[in-house]
Amino acid sequence: MNIIIAPDSFKGSLTAPEAALAIERGVRRARPDATCWLVPVGDGGEGTAACLAAATGGRLARATVSGPLGEPVEAAYAVLGGAAARSLAAGDRAAGSGARGGADAARPDTDDDSVCVIEMAEASGLGLVPLARRNPLLTTTFGTGQLIRAALDRGCRRFVLALGGSATCDGGAGMLQALGMRLLDNAGRPIGYGGAELARIVTLDDTGWDTRIAECEWLIATDVSHPLIGDQGAARVFGPQKGASPQAVEALEAALRHWADRIAAHNGVRLHERPGAGAAGGLGGAFQAFFPARQRRGIDVVIELTGLERRLADATLVITGEGRIDAQTAAGKAPLGVAQAAKRHGVPVIALAGSIGSGIAGLHETGIASVHSIVQTPMSLEAAMRDAALLLEQAAEQALRAFLAGWSQRQS
Amino acid sequence: MNIIIAPDSFKGSLTAPEAALAIERGVRRARPDATCWLVPVGDGGEGTAACLAAATGGRLARATVSGPLGEPVEAAYAVLGGAAARSLAAGDRAAGSGARGGADAARPDTDDDSVCVIEMAEASGLGLVPLARRNPLLTTTFGTGQLIRAALDRGCRRFVLALGGSATCDGGAGMLQALGMRLLDNAGRPIGYGGAELARIVTLDDTGWDTRIAECEWLIATDVSHPLIGDQGAARVFGPQKGASPQAVEALEAALRHWADRIAAHNGVRLHERPGAGAAGGLGGAFQAFFPARQRRGIDVVIELTGLERRLADATLVITGEGRIDAQTAAGKAPLGVAQAAKRHGVPVIALAGSIGSGIAGLHETGIASVHSIVQTPMSLEAAMRDAALLLEQAAEQALRAFLAGWSQRQS
Repeated sequence: MNIIIAPDSFKGSLTAPEAALAIERGVRRARPDATCWLVPVGDGGEGTAACLAAATGGRLARATVSGPLGEPVEAAYAVLGGAAARSLAAGDRAAGSGARGGADAARPDTDDDSVCVIEMAEASGLGLVPLARRNPLLTTTFGTGQLIRAALDRGCRRFVLALGGSATCDGGAGMLQALGMRLLDNAGRPIGYGGAELARIVTLDDTGWDTRIAECEWLIATDVSHPLIGDQGAARVFGPQKGASPQAVEALEAALRHWADRIAAHNGVRLHERPGAGAAGGLGGAFQAFFPARQRRGIDVVIELTGLERRLADATLVITGEGRIDAQTAAGKAPLGVAQAAKRHGVPVIALAGSIGSGIAGLHETGIASVHSIVQTPMSLEAAMRDAALLLEQAAEQALRAFLAGWSQRQS
Repeated sequence: MNIIIAPDSFKGSLTAPEAALAIERGVRRARPDATCWLVPVGDGGEGTAACLAAATGGRLARATVSGPLGEPVEAAYAVLGGAAARSLAAGDRAAGSGARGGADAARPDTDDDSVCVIEMAEASGLGLVPLARRNPLLTTTFGTGQLIRAALDRGCRRFVLALGGSATCDGGAGMLQALGMRLLDNAGRPIGYGGAELARIVTLDDTGWDTRIAECEWLIATDVSHPLIGDQGAARVFGPQKGASPQAVEALEAALRHWADRIAAHNGVRLHERPGAGAAGGLGGAFQAFFPARQRRGIDVVIELTGLERRLADATLVITGEGRIDAQTAAGKAPLGVAQAAKRHGVPVIALAGSIGSGIAGLHETGIASVHSIVQTPMSLEAAMRDAALLLEQAAEQALRAFLAGWSQRQS
């Protein structure tokens, strides 16, 4: 019996790979002879790089870059295993197409061919900035650009850009600056860093722009479809949770509008209302305007890179999970994406959650067969989070036992 | 698909019949076309009569009797449905024997033939005495005797005696007094009521003893195998939880020893070390000494009377449950008894619990396929008990969905 173990992280308790290991322990207790495929997933947010490295047998590389406020940060990016390399290329074609199979098998698994996952949160994430110093007027995506450059220098040419968890609202200007774009003020001098500086840009000078970017493959992984500006834009929707005061939000809104105008004047790309341009404080927009990039829902990219689709063909069951499952899970989170993929292959999905909210009835139509809490007894949130690994193991064991009871009964 | 729903009570929250209804609602959400057989069970303790009436399509009759301290109490006893009548008689034979089938079907379903369940806690239970007044030196089983007499007067001749939950430690003397046994002191005068009075008994006068008792069928349902006296006896083990002080416990121990001596002198039955004589403060011993009674484990009686065995032959799944499931559940509680019966028929059992303790691994060998908590999220015990019905419904739905996922996957 092949069981795919594909959880998201249990935020505050377990990373997705840790959750997968806990579930695997529970599966082994219920069915020692099961073949477990651990495919930790995520929605393209924090932890995506580590998660994909784990799921594909890839590795993490590291570079020291400038953090959101300029401090040195040791940031990781993932170089995925060979399976993912084939998968990304296949993404342009119909799912399940076998046409490239022979060529793929013959192709050497070089670094150049590997898919590289740049997770912006590693270099420019909110978690890198202490609560008291969070201020998107000042924070920059410069480190994300440095991380991309480090990967380019290493030979990577196929990139996934994971945009979740940003501390910034600089329209991706810092990232561009790190890759050779000069942003000049009215005196022709380079501007500084952070969202507030955008308002001072008069000219974009791309004479130093890294020419390797145009030769690479770029895939933006994000669930955010917000435009760059306006009431649904990067500043007004996401600014407050990054530490912007109401006054700062409006200053950022004006700065982003000016930035969008400058880009339009520079290369004709209008980011103002463009879906996804508002992701990661406008970093998504910068990729759209200056990179030959496609954009896809985070979980779909993750599913493709992990080879989940391929494995579903031979699987009996998928076990997924995340910290909380509720009515919002139906709006694009990882377990739902896993369930949709599994449903295409007719494989049932059992979901485990630290907490189950109301309104989950609709989930069952998406391919999630059942949802089980990891909580075994009345207890506090603190206790549940502290013991999450053991509780998850136990819940996985019991949920699988219920599934197997049905399986065996049918057999008899 | 036939699903047997056989929970115990969730103490403090739901009676067994209420729990069965909640589980049924959950089952209907997961599998609207399922045939549900509601068989609320118990271990022979409080609620057994109501539970068995519900499970067999029987009814409750009521009588006003004297409570543990002499106050009037409206007590119920159950007159079970026709299926149970056949089942009790079959209990003497091998399980599954079909020899009586033809005769049973022809037998009219009269009241005389019905099984009557006398639950001692209804007349003499601890729950009838306020905490401050609990004192087994004074409490009597007189009301239990009155309840039996009321049922005899109504024509009942086949009795199950459920002994759990007693407030008393009177050796069943009160029960005997109510049925015509005169217990006389050294002046030939009737003694009073309560455990302390036993010490004054010199003579038993059975000239007024109800002669119908010898003509009836009596089955004692209890899990208690304690003897009447000694360190494992009724006073020392159970006295404290009924409100006896350490001094009172020793007074009761001496009184019970005297009482056992008097019975031995009267009819030769030695209750002193007899297993089960210590049940319900010695009431079990009184039944053993003066009634033509057999004794069986509570859950086994309940399983037999409810016809659970018969239904298991056509069932796909059993769902059981109780307030707490832990390592002790392996020591004879209701879900275990249900699981043992189900295992004989190869039917898997899913168990639901308000709280799951540690050390449940051994349960899986008893026939319990999986154990699931009804708790859906970190919460307090109070909240879990308050919302127990809804939580149980949700947990039943999800556990069944996991079972059905296995069932359907196997089919495909």
